[in-house]
Amino acid sequence: MYDWKDLLGKINREIADMTYERKPEELYAPIKYVLSLGGKRVRPVLMLLAYNMYKEDVERIYPQAMAIEIYHNYTLLHDDLMDRADMRRGKLTVHKKWNDNAAILSGDSMLVMAYEYMLKNCPEGKTDKVMSLFTQTALEIGEGQQYDIEFETRNDVSEEEYIEMIRLKTSVLLACALKIGAILGEASDADAEKLYSFGENLGLAFQLQDDYLDVYGDPAVFGKKIGGDILCNKKTYMLINALRLADSEDRCQLEGWIAKSEGTYDPSEKIAAVTALYNKIGIRRLCDEKIRFYFERANHILKELALSDERKQPLWEMAHALLDRKS
Amino acid sequence: MYDWKDLLGKINREIADMTYERKPEELYAPIKYVLSLGGKRVRPVLMLLAYNMYKEDVERIYPQAMAIEIYHNYTLLHDDLMDRADMRRGKLTVHKKWNDNAAILSGDSMLVMAYEYMLKNCPEGKTDKVMSLFTQTALEIGEGQQYDIEFETRNDVSEEEYIEMIRLKTSVLLACALKIGAILGEASDADAEKLYSFGENLGLAFQLQDDYLDVYGDPAVFGKKIGGDILCNKKTYMLINALRLADSEDRCQLEGWIAKSEGTYDPSEKIAAVTALYNKIGIRRLCDEKIRFYFERANHILKELALSDERKQPLWEMAHALLDRKS
Repeated sequence: MYDWKDLLGKINREIADMTYERKPEELYAPIKYVLSLGGKRVRPVLMLLAYNMYKEDVERIYPQAMAIEIYHNYTLLHDDLMDRADMRRGKLTVHKKWNDNAAILSGDSMLVMAYEYMLKNCPEGKTDKVMSLFTQTALEIGEGQQYDIEFETRNDVSEEEYIEMIRLKTSVLLACALKIGAILGEASDADAEKLYSFGENLGLAFQLQDDYLDVYGDPAVFGKKIGGDILCNKKTYMLINALRLADSEDRCQLEGWIAKSEGTYDPSEKIAAVTALYNKIGIRRLCDEKIRFYFERANHILKELALSDERKQPLWEMAHALLDRKS
Repeated sequence: MYDWKDLLGKINREIADMTYERKPEELYAPIKYVLSLGGKRVRPVLMLLAYNMYKEDVERIYPQAMAIEIYHNYTLLHDDLMDRADMRRGKLTVHKKWNDNAAILSGDSMLVMAYEYMLKNCPEGKTDKVMSLFTQTALEIGEGQQYDIEFETRNDVSEEEYIEMIRLKTSVLLACALKIGAILGEASDADAEKLYSFGENLGLAFQLQDDYLDVYGDPAVFGKKIGGDILCNKKTYMLINALRLADSEDRCQLEGWIAKSEGTYDPSEKIAAVTALYNKIGIRRLCDEKIRFYFERANHILKELALSDERKQPLWEMAHALLDRKS
């Protein structure tokens, strides 16, 4: 049995060893670039951890683990293009380094490559199940991204809608990774379903924590600038609840900051003011509690799995590492 | 046994009956729009014709026939975005009617939908073969599109490179459609391979004819404006060979027209002049012969198929209809 750090090492070696024999080079260069930027490889590691709860030969499903990472990186590539983001993991995004068309076409081919890897040596009799789950998940993620775009121009997004959006955009891919690991590991259907639910709840906790760290994170650790969501008025769990729970004076102040046009205020002043309002309204604690709520649900579901504690331990450690505020 | 017109009617009814139950509506509206614009439905009809050579119950593979049409329309959607084309089949393209991000995201979901339909009720034991072929084809089509983009800024594209580009961009999808029809119809491997080669050659004839009609077509029938390729200096089979075969005076004139900046000449004058040069250099006949060459090769391959002439007849009629200059 491996721990998540072993599996992360294995996946990183697999990605480093990927060969790009297809042509033209100009099509595959952005794909190679994006995959070389690093990242936590959360999804393939989760898949391998789920598989490893049932079987030892994790190398058997490297292609499927690679597929989920390639797919995830394709979504980042196209999302960055749609968001006009310049940087990703401290490096230029593909549409900045190359151009928009390179980002569209290379992203498209990356999505097809994800299918290619998902199909590669897929154990006999599992292809239908794995491919259908992956395909349904990919449709849901597109839907999540569409909701995310629509929410930008809406001021009446409810907490429920927000949770559903992040479930689609983030959680279902973690859930899918775990369930594919379970299916390939020949887990029972009941276990595979439980691992899916575990992933959904872990994913919600993970995304809410990302929102939380955008406000309260340590800039040296978070990897992104603190306050980015505040500056672009992103309707996060925190802003939605702040607007809902604020008294009329605080709401007026919050709405004032939201309405200000870019360039008419000092960004650090806006971040400080909105953070102070969040603190006053009790949003920090509320978000913290919500993260714990989903994390506890994930924990509870994992406990129900028909396996020894020892076999669950590596996945549980990974879940903790994911939610560790300092990493 | 059905003829191609029967099958076209069936596919058009299937597309008209498609339900879009998934949400959000804004994501699926462009997909519905694109699929409703019509077109010749060449690829699904070819798939059904190939299947129908071996089996009668064509409705069994409607999902796979739909998949190939959805896939083809996704390529048009993203290619139009990359080419900044305003119109498609007499209607606004998706990025013009909605916006770039809608075109990116809806196109992405359409590609996933193509996989969804390809998987749907795929006969047992065929999924791996069908999905692998479809995935390899999709990678090749991305490569063809990349070459097409690169050729725009190159002046040394050879005839061989051009033929390979249109093989990747156009022919392999026709070939894939036919081969999937054969696989699902339980044709022998040899027959499935032959139908693939038939499709490759038919596709080359078809694309070269498209280039030909862009110059020599009847505007009332062709559906696009005549001379579009000439105006944008597209390195077609015709231009590549005109530059290769022209004497120094004619080449000088051709290169003069190519070098002229947009807005400094009368478009109809350029079309007339380049067409006259093509005629003088003998390009019309050369292209005509090349079309016939590939069409004859397709014909020859079809003859080799281990089936009665009667069973081949509908596919052969479809091939003729495709290459009919008047339709």
